[in-house]
Amino acid sequence: MKNLHRMLKPLRIEGGKGFKLADHDPGDTLGLDFDKKEAKSILEQGVERLSELQAMLYAQDRWAVLAVFQAMDAAGKDSSIKHVMSGVNPQGVQVTSFKAPSAEELDHDYLWRCTRHLPERGRIGIFNRSYYEEVLVARVHRQVLANQKLPPSLVGKSIWKERYEDIAAFERYLSRNGIVILKFFLNVSKDQQKKRFLDRLDEPDKNWKFSLSDVKERQYWDDYQSAYEDAIKATAAPHAPWYVIPADHKWFSRLAIAAAMVDTLDRLKLHYPSVAPEDRPDLIQARQQLLEE
Amino acid sequence: MKNLHRMLKPLRIEGGKGFKLADHDPGDTLGLDFDKKEAKSILEQGVERLSELQAMLYAQDRWAVLAVFQAMDAAGKDSSIKHVMSGVNPQGVQVTSFKAPSAEELDHDYLWRCTRHLPERGRIGIFNRSYYEEVLVARVHRQVLANQKLPPSLVGKSIWKERYEDIAAFERYLSRNGIVILKFFLNVSKDQQKKRFLDRLDEPDKNWKFSLSDVKERQYWDDYQSAYEDAIKATAAPHAPWYVIPADHKWFSRLAIAAAMVDTLDRLKLHYPSVAPEDRPDLIQARQQLLEE
Repeated sequence: MKNLHRMLKPLRIEGGKGFKLADHDPGDTLGLDFDKKEAKSILEQGVERLSELQAMLYAQDRWAVLAVFQAMDAAGKDSSIKHVMSGVNPQGVQVTSFKAPSAEELDHDYLWRCTRHLPERGRIGIFNRSYYEEVLVARVHRQVLANQKLPPSLVGKSIWKERYEDIAAFERYLSRNGIVILKFFLNVSKDQQKKRFLDRLDEPDKNWKFSLSDVKERQYWDDYQSAYEDAIKATAAPHAPWYVIPADHKWFSRLAIAAAMVDTLDRLKLHYPSVAPEDRPDLIQARQQLLEE
Repeated sequence: MKNLHRMLKPLRIEGGKGFKLADHDPGDTLGLDFDKKEAKSILEQGVERLSELQAMLYAQDRWAVLAVFQAMDAAGKDSSIKHVMSGVNPQGVQVTSFKAPSAEELDHDYLWRCTRHLPERGRIGIFNRSYYEEVLVARVHRQVLANQKLPPSLVGKSIWKERYEDIAAFERYLSRNGIVILKFFLNVSKDQQKKRFLDRLDEPDKNWKFSLSDVKERQYWDDYQSAYEDAIKATAAPHAPWYVIPADHKWFSRLAIAAAMVDTLDRLKLHYPSVAPEDRPDLIQARQQLLEE
């Protein structure tokens, strides 16, 4: 599986030095060119492997995996989660979608609501949006920050730098405690987003997915791009890599996400727990007891 | 789909009158006789249908579904959840396993820890064990009840009757608020349990699933059976039916569970939300705005 790890290298950001979002083409497919049917069949194999690995993760009950999904609207977060994670035992997977915070959540520090949903050992946690919104939407729309009612003396020029630092430290702490982190930025182009919005408007069955605010947020495209670039630069680390996933071709982004998940779990060298030699006599006795009933 | 509803009738308990667990054969297959391959293919179709229905449930965002799983050890709760629910978008499914309560949980009323994990609208919640343990293990082992540190004056002769009543009222309340409840009792025979325990002991890869306490609990088999019978009798209702699933044949129990899930969702007459006529002009304007960019 070394191949997989190497193949993903162009997408994996393990350090911020020199990172530029502009270097990453949303239409890239790493030279792969599958038709729909081929891509579907390869994805199925990936999901099957992921499912096997997850069963071992669960049985072993030592590591947890946290996969963070961030993206502009219509980049395919929801459908990627659906296609990559359906087929994996839901008992070992928990997906949390973070929407606008509640009044109770706003009364807490900004990591609070996310920490409550961190995956337990043995499980894969999926964050559909996350604490990264605190340096994305909160940065683009100052009103979001204002709503957090922080003491004014704490809202200085260095607030974003401080947040990056705090988030990086938080992820370092998690990784030191057995939570394996990987972060996906689904990198969709502005043109492709427009095309997908128009699809949602033109197909009655997709109308419910469209929200008027989606078009409004498009006006802030450049601000978001630079907020993403800064966030990735500041928080990419070997123990908490970002994957910048080209997202203009859905078949490719799903494959790449599945591959990154499989690669991450593979590298944990998981195995089913075995019984300690000193516990074996107990099992033998239990067996005897059952047979003698 | 009326057929499905009718087919499941022998397994569905909608009222306690005359209910006897002894009338339900753990080896029953409702006259069906599929080989492994046939059963797998039918299950796949069921899971696909369930997946479609779940997508509508999620899009519509009105109803939630709560499926409670209860059973003796090795009846197949975990594997049923895995086989029936894998393939459904995990973003719309949340599985919670209730184990021995924590100190914090014991300091609360017994429904507290479960209410925190009730599914949100649009989602399917799976309870792997549940508040029913409060009238099962707590009834069989008085020490469990003692650990709950209730004021002694509240622990009288009628405590189980009161708990049945409170649970029934709780479920009535949930169903009145859009949470559709169905409850599965996986009815395994004592012989089949023995066989499965021996498998776990004999196959090294399954050893980790075996716990010495499993054999110990077997001594209380009859107490559990009568506790299950009483609980089902007292809490079966049209709005919160129990399904007594014959569980000696795994292929059958999985099919029956999938069928009951599909039937329950089918009867909600789900559909994708459509845009209200008064909102249509906004969509047209948004479309125009995108095209003119």
